Amino acid sequence: VSGEISVASRQSGRPGLGRVTLVGAGPGAADLLTVRAVRALEQAQVVFYDALVSRETLELAPRAQRFCVGKRAGRPSTRQETIHALMIRAARRGRRVVRLKGGDPFVFGRGGEEMLALASAGVPCEVVPGVSSALAAPALSGIPATHRSLSAAFVVVSGHAETAWGPLLTTLPPGAATVIVLMGLGARGAISAAMVQAGWPRSTPAAVLWGAATAVARRWLGTLGTLPEAQASSVTQDAPGTLVIGEVVALAAVLAPADELEERGEAHAC
Amino acid sequence: VSGEISVASRQSGRPGLGRVTLVGAGPGAADLLTVRAVRALEQAQVVFYDALVSRETLELAPRAQRFCVGKRAGRPSTRQETIHALMIRAARRGRRVVRLKGGDPFVFGRGGEEMLALASAGVPCEVVPGVSSALAAPALSGIPATHRSLSAAFVVVSGHAETAWGPLLTTLPPGAATVIVLMGLGARGAISAAMVQAGWPRSTPAAVLWGAATAVARRWLGTLGTLPEAQASSVTQDAPGTLVIGEVVALAAVLAPADELEERGEAHAC
Repeated sequence: VSGEISVASRQSGRPGLGRVTLVGAGPGAADLLTVRAVRALEQAQVVFYDALVSRETLELAPRAQRFCVGKRAGRPSTRQETIHALMIRAARRGRRVVRLKGGDPFVFGRGGEEMLALASAGVPCEVVPGVSSALAAPALSGIPATHRSLSAAFVVVSGHAETAWGPLLTTLPPGAATVIVLMGLGARGAISAAMVQAGWPRSTPAAVLWGAATAVARRWLGTLGTLPEAQASSVTQDAPGTLVIGEVVALAAVLAPADELEERGEAHAC
Repeated sequence: VSGEISVASRQSGRPGLGRVTLVGAGPGAADLLTVRAVRALEQAQVVFYDALVSRETLELAPRAQRFCVGKRAGRPSTRQETIHALMIRAARRGRRVVRLKGGDPFVFGRGGEEMLALASAGVPCEVVPGVSSALAAPALSGIPATHRSLSAAFVVVSGHAETAWGPLLTTLPPGAATVIVLMGLGARGAISAAMVQAGWPRSTPAAVLWGAATAVARRWLGTLGTLPEAQASSVTQDAPGTLVIGEVVALAAVLAPADELEERGEAHAC
């Protein structure tokens, strides 16, 4: 953090110019932020946050003006160009700005786009990596992304558009990597069909994880063949779900038994 | 695997029984540990740590007995079975044990193996996910793992054995994902050749990153074709290096210009 300060003073060049710190808020719980992220929030004067950031995380920035720029309560999210303009304006007013994103800013977080916009505007910007939900959701559910003799690689892909996951998941040799799909709940049927078609056994263990690292975490365990039927009764249909497909999923029942999850206040749906 | 273990015995809550917390130490800097990790270290009575864990990180556990079980100063690392036995013995003596691993415990960290061994022994164990070096090393070097219009997926694989990366990297459609190879420095020539053979353009941007998030961070930028020649003069040959291959690497020069890295006390070799 001492480095942060010297970086700020050196980059300012122009007196009075603020700066933006792109901060990963991790998978949900406030104590899964990094120490560097907490300090950035404590020093922030303005925070622009996404809808998935928890209330307890926002309370780490008690002195900051806080603006939600994500999709919330059915209303559309702020346009990306508007977010850029808001950050640039606040920085030009000399503010210490934090842009707070769920997970890691560079894993489907549009962090790169925002850094490019800030760089174009001459606004100093740095990134604080966060614990990615892509890895933490499985880990907290008892699923290691890699495991000797089971998987020496993993693939993380967005399920939002078939143009993204299609080329990858239809050519991936069966078993060559653990497959982790973010925002993939709506596509679970299509993904299951495509992977079975590509030669993955229907019996390959599969999981769906909702709200990892939050009090409303839910887990479904099944197989690639039954994945289309995955659901958790108490989870709203539009809650983001993480899919995990691969032999490592079989470890979940041992590494995080359902009764343990329940004692942690989490439920399982299988 | 699930058959081997009596789940019932783990939840015993036997009085006097200690517990083990598997903690991810993140990519290097102590302030990139999570708050939960810092608390676990503060409360630890015994810490078993890997060689890549920094001194400043270890100082977060001032009251604990600390044992290095990783490869150090040319001496071989502790056998995996010995690590298991040491953790189980400490826990059975009622100790609060932290098993501290670089990055995330479940990304090539053998965390799953250790949790299985602890579960078999009836020792309560939980995991604290960490910031994975696989994502943080690129991020801190100005390389987003995903970026709209450039990459909607990424692959993380170990470069340690061709049996791991071969099946994946020789079938991955060119450009379908950002490729991140951990422990891949020694295999950079073979990986470059295999990917070019599989149709990836030799002009695809590529990077090698050493010691991300530490004071000795080094970055090399080039292409898939020049990757075999990648080196940083001031880095010892056996320092672990992270390879990144894909169009997103082209963003590095803009998002983290070389002069900025130098001012942060980091150097670049390109």
